[in-house]
Amino acid sequence: MNVAIIGYGYWGPNLVRNFMTAPGCQVSYVFDTSQKALDKVTKSYPEIAITQDLNEILKDSATDAVAIATPVGTHFELAKKALEQGKHVLLEKPMTAKLSEANELIRIADSLGLTLMVDHTYLYTESVLKMQQLIESGDIGNIQYIDSTRINLGLFQRDVNVLWDLAPHDISICMYLMQEAPIGVQATGVSHTGSTLANIAYLNLFYPNNKIAHFNCSWVSPVKIRQMLIGGDKKMILFNDLETTEKLRIYDKGYSILPDTDRERILIDYRIGDITIPKIGQGEALSAMVLDFKNAIENKTSPRSNSYIGKEVVRILEAAEKSILNKGQYMEL
Amino acid sequence: MNVAIIGYGYWGPNLVRNFMTAPGCQVSYVFDTSQKALDKVTKSYPEIAITQDLNEILKDSATDAVAIATPVGTHFELAKKALEQGKHVLLEKPMTAKLSEANELIRIADSLGLTLMVDHTYLYTESVLKMQQLIESGDIGNIQYIDSTRINLGLFQRDVNVLWDLAPHDISICMYLMQEAPIGVQATGVSHTGSTLANIAYLNLFYPNNKIAHFNCSWVSPVKIRQMLIGGDKKMILFNDLETTEKLRIYDKGYSILPDTDRERILIDYRIGDITIPKIGQGEALSAMVLDFKNAIENKTSPRSNSYIGKEVVRILEAAEKSILNKGQYMEL
Amino acid sequence: MNVAIIGYGYWGPNLVRNFMTAPGCQVSYVFDTSQKALDKVTKSYPEIAITQDLNEILKDSATDAVAIATPVGTHFELAKKALEQGKHVLLEKPMTAKLSEANELIRIADSLGLTLMVDHTYLYTESVLKMQQLIESGDIGNIQYIDSTRINLGLFQRDVNVLWDLAPHDISICMYLMQEAPIGVQATGVSHTGSTLANIAYLNLFYPNNKIAHFNCSWVSPVKIRQMLIGGDKKMILFNDLETTEKLRIYDKGYSILPDTDRERILIDYRIGDITIPKIGQGEALSAMVLDFKNAIENKTSPRSNSYIGKEVVRILEAAEKSILNKGQYMEL
Amino acid sequence: MNVAIIGYGYWGPNLVRNFMTAPGCQVSYVFDTSQKALDKVTKSYPEIAITQDLNEILKDSATDAVAIATPVGTHFELAKKALEQGKHVLLEKPMTAKLSEANELIRIADSLGLTLMVDHTYLYTESVLKMQQLIESGDIGNIQYIDSTRINLGLFQRDVNVLWDLAPHDISICMYLMQEAPIGVQATGVSHTGSTLANIAYLNLFYPNNKIAHFNCSWVSPVKIRQMLIGGDKKMILFNDLETTEKLRIYDKGYSILPDTDRERILIDYRIGDITIPKIGQGEALSAMVLDFKNAIENKTSPRSNSYIGKEVVRILEAAEKSILNKGQYMEL
Repeated sequence: MNVAIIGYGYWGPNLVRNFMTAPGCQVSYVFDTSQKALDKVTKSYPEIAITQDLNEILKDSATDAVAIATPVGTHFELAKKALEQGKHVLLEKPMTAKLSEANELIRIADSLGLTLMVDHTYLYTESVLKMQQLIESGDIGNIQYIDSTRINLGLFQRDVNVLWDLAPHDISICMYLMQEAPIGVQATGVSHTGSTLANIAYLNLFYPNNKIAHFNCSWVSPVKIRQMLIGGDKKMILFNDLETTEKLRIYDKGYSILPDTDRERILIDYRIGDITIPKIGQGEALSAMVLDFKNAIENKTSPRSNSYIGKEVVRILEAAEKSILNKGQYMEL
Repeated sequence: MNVAIIGYGYWGPNLVRNFMTAPGCQVSYVFDTSQKALDKVTKSYPEIAITQDLNEILKDSATDAVAIATPVGTHFELAKKALEQGKHVLLEKPMTAKLSEANELIRIADSLGLTLMVDHTYLYTESVLKMQQLIESGDIGNIQYIDSTRINLGLFQRDVNVLWDLAPHDISICMYLMQEAPIGVQATGVSHTGSTLANIAYLNLFYPNNKIAHFNCSWVSPVKIRQMLIGGDKKMILFNDLETTEKLRIYDKGYSILPDTDRERILIDYRIGDITIPKIGQGEALSAMVLDFKNAIENKTSPRSNSYIGKEVVRILEAAEKSILNKGQYMEL
Repeated sequence: MNVAIIGYGYWGPNLVRNFMTAPGCQVSYVFDTSQKALDKVTKSYPEIAITQDLNEILKDSATDAVAIATPVGTHFELAKKALEQGKHVLLEKPMTAKLSEANELIRIADSLGLTLMVDHTYLYTESVLKMQQLIESGDIGNIQYIDSTRINLGLFQRDVNVLWDLAPHDISICMYLMQEAPIGVQATGVSHTGSTLANIAYLNLFYPNNKIAHFNCSWVSPVKIRQMLIGGDKKMILFNDLETTEKLRIYDKGYSILPDTDRERILIDYRIGDITIPKIGQGEALSAMVLDFKNAIENKTSPRSNSYIGKEVVRILEAAEKSILNKGQYMEL
Repeated sequence: MNVAIIGYGYWGPNLVRNFMTAPGCQVSYVFDTSQKALDKVTKSYPEIAITQDLNEILKDSATDAVAIATPVGTHFELAKKALEQGKHVLLEKPMTAKLSEANELIRIADSLGLTLMVDHTYLYTESVLKMQQLIESGDIGNIQYIDSTRINLGLFQRDVNVLWDLAPHDISICMYLMQEAPIGVQATGVSHTGSTLANIAYLNLFYPNNKIAHFNCSWVSPVKIRQMLIGGDKKMILFNDLETTEKLRIYDKGYSILPDTDRERILIDYRIGDITIPKIGQGEALSAMVLDFKNAIENKTSPRSNSYIGKEVVRILEAAEKSILNKGQYMEL
């Protein structure tokens, strides 16, 4: 499978490296508008063709797929062109800048029978996979809430608010673990730069049956926290991504609501048991993502990080931004 | 000063113990409707008079003040009676069940020249005092945000939601440190018990100049977290109340927004310096609170945890509850 | 059972409180040489007889047992007198100041059929009990090493070195978990006060089959550490006594030495599995110790913290002190 | 400066990479006995000459220096040959397998005016440099003890005990910070593999004026700990090398021994102040080491990680091994 990498900035080199080492894959081209970026490609990989002309890549019938790692504002145009030339497309997250664009790309890909995938790399980490397995096995019970904190003293993005920057990770995990879409969004945030782009934001997703997901995102925290609580009605999980070997803690801890027909009160039975820190494998997420992309193309299957998840992330971010600008108004999805 | 303690349940014994050891104070009565509770008083303090008749206390001209530690629903009636009999009043938090009740009590106390105080004990901890001093000294700069997490597997209250139970601590700290009142409230929450009382809730307070305070409260977290971030534009503080000797961490960490007249972009200058963990004294908060109450009465001064803070906490909780029931609607204060 | 408490300083009040609440026990006397100490007894427990005359207690045939909580230098004389008057004896740790004294007390108690017990309270903590159960069940396999760190900025004792102060806890745990006595002792230490009493000391216990126990004790550490590693050949335990709810961590982690007949090298197979943090009960250790003392007297059984463990702790401390003064010379036991 | 790298196993590639990027340096040759290793060199650095013939390197007058990263048993022969051919030598730690070999190499280097240096990389970390600066500035006062723990579930070495593997790091740091050599060594250890090579070992270094350094090294700990306490009489430092951004904590904590001429007792005054976590730079240690080597050659100065430190590390390890095999006998240095 011949893959062309579009964009060789921050993430492009990681894609090149992983596609180069994936069995059955090769990187045929790297495209970038900057000659300086392309020179770096040649220095590291003299065998890869470089170009500033996208058509060269798209017209080449040997090109099977493109992986697009450019600023989000350019995703739609680039992906559309590539799909229309019959190329499978991998898009960096977030998928597009607007929901309508995501819908349009999905429509085109579907009509042409092409694979359209979004690189939500987190879905390929061993930690997330383990959580999904625990949930699927029934060990955790029904998920009642997800509570995520992703804060640090981070780089302010100039074109998007902090949710567009940080929340796609957690929203995609949430989509994958919850296995259902939220029915409403509500978000608040503030900007300390004089712009309308919040640098602190709090996002809530509402689900049927009183499930809720909460996301605390900030570029202005002195401490770095990457933490997610998944509360099931049987067990609960704490996912701390900053831990090196103890990323997951499974708490046999919870409560049950007891039937109490006689009186008008809530009886609750608390339960505190052992904590387990499962051993997690060390596989590289990006490498697994690349293989899933290849596999999806070859077998015409839906990859784990599929365009539906990608689109829902954009839908949520778009609604969240609107909610922030409207003082936290509830947005039905 | 003769103080009568009204209510000898969970908190009452702490009040008795602290008023008994405060110089110049004595506990003249303990009132409770339960004889069993009163028997406990007699066992520990044979010298204290016990009664199930409130009037006995209020009619006794030797009673200078009453401290009320009963369920919040009874605060208003009890405090009103006591004030009307010319007694100074200390109320446990939250002050009252409704804002209108708090306003009415303040009106009565003011008209009679009596001290009306609310026991937000946290304001008397050495940690909060240290933070207030750091802010007052200018070291922290302007506060830009407060972000608080107070979660654990806690007892479900039957008559109030999780905010009424847990948030008064953090809201009172916020009032004390911010030195200004919020202009809007927005909150969301869910209940997993079938009632309307949220057991997970997220509260946002909005201030002038894009300041924000966020409170994450939950009774259903497997881990106990008691943490507050205070972000100033010079330094930032992390207050971790579960630490025994290292409750505060002061980060010389932040960013400045640089003037950039020529271009339409935000230039930000990051700064990472040392972290300081200041030594904090070991004084008991409740004992300091009791002394502040006595001092406020004697000198007719406003105590640190005054009725204004108490009232604002109720105002916020009342608005937050309404917001939760209205899908996170913004409530102007 | 009537118990007299000898010594009402730091630990005596805890003994009084626990014997008072133990079913079937009552404290008949408290002895102390200080009238001030005795006044405190009367204030808290008006019903307990106080005395400065030990004979009053020992001559009283209603006295079944005495609990001795005086400085270690006085243990031998007091316990000897009490035993000779037919009283069962509970001694605070360390049992005596010299091994010969411990042996003499054991000889007397045995000859008179009396219970002689040492209060190594740690053996009654839920953490230590849980470890013992894990070891007894075979889950941990054969213990290969114990490595203990007990350091902080502590009070310098004036008459004993840091090992006599801090190590009895860990040595008694070691005796209890290992279920065999060490065959040799080696220790080093330094004093920074000009005396011969080490304020930092390192103690090694040697066991058959290359087992080892290491104890790091210090009064001059800026951080407080109370940590013990127990390495079995199946699993390993980390006991962190400063944790409130997560005191034990059980690591399914280890290695096996593989047979390698052909070549002259060691083949080792590493194993890394889950970590479990078991739920530990909240029972008060001292209360369980008091019941064990009562039970041992009534049923003429050997208590968990028996005089053999008490004596071995003294033997080890005595040998360790000698080793320190002889530049770490190995002392056969 | 032309440098030849001898040995391209675990550490060799790091040396090549750092010498290649050091200004004014180039790697002229890589030597290894394995063709497979040399092929890797060519793949990454086609411009570097490879050889299995050491003489080719040593005979080449363009070779200024060699860096030796082979097993310690071969260090002496290789370094001797290189020095005798007039080449400056950088040796990986530990310097040699025997003290006599280290002495001989130093003698040769001195007589020929050549630089002989040992790569104790830790001395070039920003953490160690910061500690040295704190000590030199007088902030810490006189060092009274160093207490180091370096344990984890590690690879058993087949030819050396755990001290030869792990302790060189800490001993070199100790030498650098203490600025004086120990006068005695004492060590104990056990082997669980049936060999004489201890896999757990405890090493004590004795210094004049009752200073002590203690090293706890183990290949069989379930938890990884890399921690060093440096106790000064003014302040104390905790160096936790597993922390990513908070490696050092400086405690304004300690005690003073008060004069007490009248009575025979020790009066001690405790002091507990703030804790500071200084910001530490992010410079790569190995790169700084390479520059120090180059600088030492050019300016005929003694590098930070000089042959004296290298030799003392070997002297201590040799004495420690002897002490272990003699039940912890004290070894004068």
